[in-house]
Amino acid sequence: MKAIRIGMIGCGVVGGGVADLLARRGKDLAARVGAPIELVKVAVRDMSKRRDAPIDESIFTTNPYEVVDSQDVDVVLEVMGGQDPALDLTLRAVKNGKHIVTANKHLLALHGTQVYEAVETAGVELGFEAAVAGAVPIIRSLKGAFAANRIESVHGIVNGTGNYILSRMADEGKTFDVILKDAQKLGYAEADPTFDVEGIDSAHKIAILASLAFETPIDFDAVYTEGITPITPEDIAMAREFGHRIKLLAIAKRAGDEVDVRVHPAMIPVTDPIANVNGALNAVEVEGDFAGVNMLVGPGAGAGPTASAVMGDVVDIARKMLHGGVGRTPPMNVPSSSMKKLKTRSIDKTLSRYYLRFTVPDTPGVLAMIAGALGESGISIASMIQRGHEEDKPVSVVLTTHTAMEADLKKALAKIGSLNVCAAPTVTIRIEGDGEE
Amino acid sequence: MKAIRIGMIGCGVVGGGVADLLARRGKDLAARVGAPIELVKVAVRDMSKRRDAPIDESIFTTNPYEVVDSQDVDVVLEVMGGQDPALDLTLRAVKNGKHIVTANKHLLALHGTQVYEAVETAGVELGFEAAVAGAVPIIRSLKGAFAANRIESVHGIVNGTGNYILSRMADEGKTFDVILKDAQKLGYAEADPTFDVEGIDSAHKIAILASLAFETPIDFDAVYTEGITPITPEDIAMAREFGHRIKLLAIAKRAGDEVDVRVHPAMIPVTDPIANVNGALNAVEVEGDFAGVNMLVGPGAGAGPTASAVMGDVVDIARKMLHGGVGRTPPMNVPSSSMKKLKTRSIDKTLSRYYLRFTVPDTPGVLAMIAGALGESGISIASMIQRGHEEDKPVSVVLTTHTAMEADLKKALAKIGSLNVCAAPTVTIRIEGDGEE
Repeated sequence: MKAIRIGMIGCGVVGGGVADLLARRGKDLAARVGAPIELVKVAVRDMSKRRDAPIDESIFTTNPYEVVDSQDVDVVLEVMGGQDPALDLTLRAVKNGKHIVTANKHLLALHGTQVYEAVETAGVELGFEAAVAGAVPIIRSLKGAFAANRIESVHGIVNGTGNYILSRMADEGKTFDVILKDAQKLGYAEADPTFDVEGIDSAHKIAILASLAFETPIDFDAVYTEGITPITPEDIAMAREFGHRIKLLAIAKRAGDEVDVRVHPAMIPVTDPIANVNGALNAVEVEGDFAGVNMLVGPGAGAGPTASAVMGDVVDIARKMLHGGVGRTPPMNVPSSSMKKLKTRSIDKTLSRYYLRFTVPDTPGVLAMIAGALGESGISIASMIQRGHEEDKPVSVVLTTHTAMEADLKKALAKIGSLNVCAAPTVTIRIEGDGEE
Repeated sequence: MKAIRIGMIGCGVVGGGVADLLARRGKDLAARVGAPIELVKVAVRDMSKRRDAPIDESIFTTNPYEVVDSQDVDVVLEVMGGQDPALDLTLRAVKNGKHIVTANKHLLALHGTQVYEAVETAGVELGFEAAVAGAVPIIRSLKGAFAANRIESVHGIVNGTGNYILSRMADEGKTFDVILKDAQKLGYAEADPTFDVEGIDSAHKIAILASLAFETPIDFDAVYTEGITPITPEDIAMAREFGHRIKLLAIAKRAGDEVDVRVHPAMIPVTDPIANVNGALNAVEVEGDFAGVNMLVGPGAGAGPTASAVMGDVVDIARKMLHGGVGRTPPMNVPSSSMKKLKTRSIDKTLSRYYLRFTVPDTPGVLAMIAGALGESGISIASMIQRGHEEDKPVSVVLTTHTAMEADLKKALAKIGSLNVCAAPTVTIRIEGDGEE
């Protein structure tokens, strides 16, 4: 039987996992698909690099265009990442009639619309399960099992590195910097952790999920993004006292005619299952009007899980190649031309409860000034804790608010800033998911 | 554009949900599928029954064979349940070239092989996401996202009623009988709760999952099944003391050349996410060699979630009808003819830790006799707690064991029984998932 021929761009952790999976599970896959799946070409940056992956050296090339232009390649796996040259390579492969399986969330978040349109025009398939939350089957579930629903919201933890760091900070009471360094040593964080710890990687993923769930293009620049670098052991301890955990959440919700898409640390009650998703795990909760709330939890990264997602997509495409159906279901479920253009709501219009930690001198009248400024902006205080009491040292005043609009909070915080009473920047963390909204 | 025409057998809770979904989401579905989906015929038992479902009365019939024989029906939804006449109707619909979407786990667990073979022969599609865990996308994930893996195990909570009862027993400290009665009053348990509380419904579902995950027919009679009726508030309290929760688990694992498929109450550590899945929720954990451990959690029953699963399958079938691919991927991922025939392991060969509660007189020597009998069978005690101390009243002696083989435990318990020291039957609960095995 005619083989399904795979060309791969990139052969790092994920590419190695794919090669390993093909070597170990090739026979099973052939039985499930009805034809053998063969790796025929692999583009790498450095030929001389030692690789453990079970790949015949003769199929390596340093020129990725050889993969996308090859007559012998049916499906291109893009596991190199980044925008350039990944975008050009992807578009060229599509133009050449190749099907694409990609783990590149960065590319899809920023250039998704262009890629989806090219894919639809060429009538090829695009698999991108691996781009969001590794092995967790969230893309397929949105396109398949939940396809009969109006999706109301998708939210969760979609960055394993960030979750690993926050979990260890909570367990060990250590600072972000200390845990980050150790995470880098152990291979849980990259040398340049910016994308992970600043929430950018999470923003890439939630932009893709929001686009698919709400059938709208998402302007990545409009996705509000805040990272975990300002989180302190003190805030984690305070959260615990309120019965909450701090997690880096990626959130996409319908908000009237707009969509609310944002990434930021949030306090969530321990009774929320997502609060208990620890370590490098990812978790995504989907709310559909009929399906109700479903949560998918699993390893969001790593060679095995990502290879599982990539090859799951390859199985799907191979079946279509053999049995029909290629290129007929658009990447985003509906044709690009009929997607709605929903506006991304400004973060200023967010309605949330807030945790506020002020660092102020322990003198009479200060609390009244803060409470007054909040009250003037219509922000109502839900609880207050004051900590620390050392002669001539500032204290922490922690307030939680009832539901308020972000714009009003900003106004109040600007007012408080102008009072010149705070000895350090005020910490603001949104409180999610405890019913009051 | 040519409509996809649906015939439905049964119009109870699930059927009503399907009609409701079609009425409310019909336009969105048409956009996602590329053609309208229309309900054209519905078989009901009693025409005169008042229904809230938005269905034109003219399409009702009391003869389900009118649905499966109709020239106007493309896809038959079987939401009536049971074996008879569901099996005959399903096989006849298949013979007539209709695609099938079913929520009937009972039918698939007992007659799956026959149905799958008929479906393959006829070259039609069979959707059965709704048969296991409602909206939770476990069937599709096994067939799709995880298709590149060798699945090592599938286990979890797949019966909402049982989980609801156990959760309330744990929260309220009340007996099974009291909670069951209240659950029946509230509509969480049926008038005849046998299938739910005796583990039979869970066994149906795990038989289907095991068959799909391991690509083998499963002899339903070989699935070991134990229900939750013997669970007492005392055992739940003891479990809590050991840091465990009692859940009705459905388990399917590879065990060498055999498969280990069973349903029984189990103690699981609170640190296991499944221990924290409460109320009527379902949770299924899948372990794949590449995907690692992924958990899917959601509502396992109810009109909305089940309708979501049914209509998700309809969307899939409709796309194939319109764009190709119909009948080419067998229901169980591989053709029935090439399924392996793995033997279901006898429960006697189960390796597990055990919780044992003996009711014995509080007299010297009794504990030594019990410990002696266990030791003779090679069963080693991990911990012991004795409770109660009233003059002339028997006490509870609770033991947990290290990993032992079920056959050895049975031998020891028979020996202890023959000593005539127990004032009540000994309670045995398996301890799962804490690493020792």
